[in-house]
Amino acid sequence: MSPRKKATRKPKPAPKAKAARKAKTARKPPPPRRPAKRPAPAAAPRQRATAKSMAAQQREISVSEFFTKNRHLLGFDSPTKALLTTIKEAVDNSLDACEEAGILPDLEVRIEAVADNRYRVVVTDNGPGIVKRQIPRIFGKLLYGSKFHRLRQSRGQQGIGISAAGMYGQLTTGKPIVIESRTGPRKPAHRYELVIDTLRNEPVIKRESEAEWQAAHGTSVAIELEGSYKRGRHGVGTYLRQTALANPHVQIGYQGPNEDERELYPRSSRELPVEALEIKPHPYGVEVGLLMRMLKETRARRLRSFFRSEFSRIGPTVATRIIEGAGLKVTTSPRRVTSERAEQLIEQIRETRIPAPPTSCLSPIGEERILASLKEQLQADFYAALSRPPAVYRGNPFQVEVGLAFGGDMAADDLVSVYRFANRVPLLYQQGACALTKSVLGTNWKAYGLQQSRGALPTGPATLMVHIASVWVPFTSESKEAVAGYDEILRELRLALQGIGRQLGAHIRKDRRRRDAARKHAYIEKYIPHIGIALREILELTDRQETRVVATLTDTLERSRKL
Amino acid sequence: MSPRKKATRKPKPAPKAKAARKAKTARKPPPPRRPAKRPAPAAAPRQRATAKSMAAQQREISVSEFFTKNRHLLGFDSPTKALLTTIKEAVDNSLDACEEAGILPDLEVRIEAVADNRYRVVVTDNGPGIVKRQIPRIFGKLLYGSKFHRLRQSRGQQGIGISAAGMYGQLTTGKPIVIESRTGPRKPAHRYELVIDTLRNEPVIKRESEAEWQAAHGTSVAIELEGSYKRGRHGVGTYLRQTALANPHVQIGYQGPNEDERELYPRSSRELPVEALEIKPHPYGVEVGLLMRMLKETRARRLRSFFRSEFSRIGPTVATRIIEGAGLKVTTSPRRVTSERAEQLIEQIRETRIPAPPTSCLSPIGEERILASLKEQLQADFYAALSRPPAVYRGNPFQVEVGLAFGGDMAADDLVSVYRFANRVPLLYQQGACALTKSVLGTNWKAYGLQQSRGALPTGPATLMVHIASVWVPFTSESKEAVAGYDEILRELRLALQGIGRQLGAHIRKDRRRRDAARKHAYIEKYIPHIGIALREILELTDRQETRVVATLTDTLERSRKL
Repeated sequence: MSPRKKATRKPKPAPKAKAARKAKTARKPPPPRRPAKRPAPAAAPRQRATAKSMAAQQREISVSEFFTKNRHLLGFDSPTKALLTTIKEAVDNSLDACEEAGILPDLEVRIEAVADNRYRVVVTDNGPGIVKRQIPRIFGKLLYGSKFHRLRQSRGQQGIGISAAGMYGQLTTGKPIVIESRTGPRKPAHRYELVIDTLRNEPVIKRESEAEWQAAHGTSVAIELEGSYKRGRHGVGTYLRQTALANPHVQIGYQGPNEDERELYPRSSRELPVEALEIKPHPYGVEVGLLMRMLKETRARRLRSFFRSEFSRIGPTVATRIIEGAGLKVTTSPRRVTSERAEQLIEQIRETRIPAPPTSCLSPIGEERILASLKEQLQADFYAALSRPPAVYRGNPFQVEVGLAFGGDMAADDLVSVYRFANRVPLLYQQGACALTKSVLGTNWKAYGLQQSRGALPTGPATLMVHIASVWVPFTSESKEAVAGYDEILRELRLALQGIGRQLGAHIRKDRRRRDAARKHAYIEKYIPHIGIALREILELTDRQETRVVATLTDTLERSRKL
Repeated sequence: MSPRKKATRKPKPAPKAKAARKAKTARKPPPPRRPAKRPAPAAAPRQRATAKSMAAQQREISVSEFFTKNRHLLGFDSPTKALLTTIKEAVDNSLDACEEAGILPDLEVRIEAVADNRYRVVVTDNGPGIVKRQIPRIFGKLLYGSKFHRLRQSRGQQGIGISAAGMYGQLTTGKPIVIESRTGPRKPAHRYELVIDTLRNEPVIKRESEAEWQAAHGTSVAIELEGSYKRGRHGVGTYLRQTALANPHVQIGYQGPNEDERELYPRSSRELPVEALEIKPHPYGVEVGLLMRMLKETRARRLRSFFRSEFSRIGPTVATRIIEGAGLKVTTSPRRVTSERAEQLIEQIRETRIPAPPTSCLSPIGEERILASLKEQLQADFYAALSRPPAVYRGNPFQVEVGLAFGGDMAADDLVSVYRFANRVPLLYQQGACALTKSVLGTNWKAYGLQQSRGALPTGPATLMVHIASVWVPFTSESKEAVAGYDEILRELRLALQGIGRQLGAHIRKDRRRRDAARKHAYIEKYIPHIGIALREILELTDRQETRVVATLTDTLERSRKL
């Protein structure tokens, strides 16, 4: 970061007299550990700071500067990850837009090698397009978007992802992000080249024009960035395959940087997922501070209508009970509620039984679809799927789903593979930090017939798929790679994994019994005739008697086997 | 989040004709999965969105709103963690301020139980105090501070921590953060009560006055918050104990919520750590985008002086080589460098051998201090410490240190305890997400005599301490609980752990040899006299001959044992 012209940047050195006074209380500065070629800048280095010199260094940090320095928070900490994150952010946006507009998503993902460690990523969709005047801010400003303020399941939620990818491209290559979009057959397509002014977190339009666009509507985003292209577990292929697993309605064409890397991930279903609907906040998720803000900002004139219009699941009776319980009147103006009364309102809410929030805001994959997807993608002997009923953390509805494939051609002495998903998006990084993984680790798989070392994933020929759907997935960082461990979420995960574990255990036990039985059966077939012969010789039986004895013995043993 | 008065909040429903046209391409909306008691708000729910209706929902997200919703990013995802994070942020700031001013830190941490699940945290220091006009923004605005823009090791770096703690308190209790500070004996102390306006991310002063303050200088911060107080592994006690381990110069008095929870963590050294000095960015850490910004903002008039004044480790010869290598003149104005030339400059920088950045910006603990601290706090048979030489990731100097205590009264069949530190701050959460832990997991401890299951921590009677010191620790989230896995950092961690592992292995082998030898010695002592007696009887030896035979045998065996 370079020093700026702002006067605050270089603190004035403290006046000498004061510095001398200070020096008496401060210890003598030690000699530098290593010779620095040039003295450090700013305040004279051999003199400790004072309140005044520190104050002179205080300044505001723009959100773009913050994320420039903290790019790993956004998933740009390594060149391989940067490439994947860029694709992921663009694909997330495309899928969200298509589904919101009721369009079956048809995407094209292209990676072009520009130079060593430099790639151009182009993601094109058949979505509804983006209104012209919104393009600069959506792609050229961090913390801007439509999904943050609403309660409804979607892949994007922060208003950071795609503009951060553009910013990363700009930082590493100096090149702008290029957007083309068309909103309908009678509208022209627009083309923008944008960069972010990181000091102000505002878009700067570099070039703007109309563009050629064949289809009736859609958007394409192109970002040139420093990256590294690798196949394998964290590669683009894995990401697209897992995306297809959780989104059977999506079709994606993929062209890798090498000519032979052409793939098509066709849709296996023409049915869009259930549409998630926006809901109001649930009272259980509201705290004093937020309630006070809502009271100040509401358009409702009376407390009762405030509660009924701003929250989920509050009817007139419940509203009255809460308001009067806090010693207020239903006709009081929300603006006149003091902070003490607000606290009492919160207390009343917590003591009142209020139904769980509506779950129409969620769009889980569903057991049937999970099973179908697993069967299509994995060769196994046993498949299971389990969707938990919706639950709530901090007022946010969420739902956990688990799928399992066991046996077949998976290696029996490997650790179990865990595929993690949040709102249908595969999570490829930060496995160790994720509540989904931790729940798998914390489940006692020995009880269900798998081996497991302490603190490790279970071992066995199995793939687990764990999905959380929520109006607000609590990710552990802005890069959305791992889910935070809220208690309610951990609980649902545990129950889901135990449920699937029991199914697996039953299968493994049945399988073991079946194999035992088969072995026993083989013994019977092998030895009983010999027993027959021996008996005939000892007891001098006739052939007929021998046959009858053998039949009786076989029958008895078969019957005992079945018990 | 409540709807606001902004017109953009409620999208106008699309005109009917258009909606009908849209409906043809869209699939029929499915019936709601569950009866929602009231229809969802905003756009008519049964109608899919269009580019226009989506555009109407786009808005800016304030950084405070963002972190309100994403509070787990800041370490406020559970009540227990919220309490600890609040204390940690206040203590970090106090220690940084004291050290910067050359004052031996003397802190008082107090937790008062206000009600069920409600606590008041008060942290008081003897630091230099804070200039009055800076107090509101330091404590009432996210992304504001003095440490973000400078390259120098400190505990705080983001300008988020303490204001986030205040915001969390405000959200959960409605109460303001209270700050008292005095900058010198001739100055009055100031008292502020502040809240954050989360929509604008600006401080709102609730009350302001002069205050009583006994000492000559210092600051106290009080935050009331919803929290939960627990002892144990993630408790305040553990945090303070580990803080003392990594900061032997710090003295902390602690008063828990119960009267008997009074502790003093006395300083074990009166020597302040080596002062870390601010440095300029190193050229290897600069990319095209940043270079272009620096070229635009510099006060230097010529390229050569630009390179010499804005970077570490660039002398006149190197500057000239880089500039001329990119086809530019040393006298060119920085402002006139095009983006193509900037790319060439970056290329030249990468091809030029430039010395590593000065490491005077770091202040590691040091092997001696680590050993002393370990010995003071842990009862063990064997101690080791290792400080790696400074290294660089993305232009940022950093240094890895490892300490180990083995044996003694630690349990031999437990997983090894790992204490993690970043810039002398203990990291208590997100162990699984942290590069420090991952490096421990990834080390082959079997080679050094410990047991280890695949994918798990080693087992054995040991405690490992891993410290990273850097001008910019790349944390995996704003809560600063885990370190991101940059390749260069992972490499240094691996080398440090292997180094300490070899020391441990040597100790364990020596110990095993010693025990084997002792056992052999015991055999010799036990059996040789009997052999002597037997030989005497068989060969009819005299007593003297027997003694000689026994001596010779013993000697031979003892000698063979030593080989």
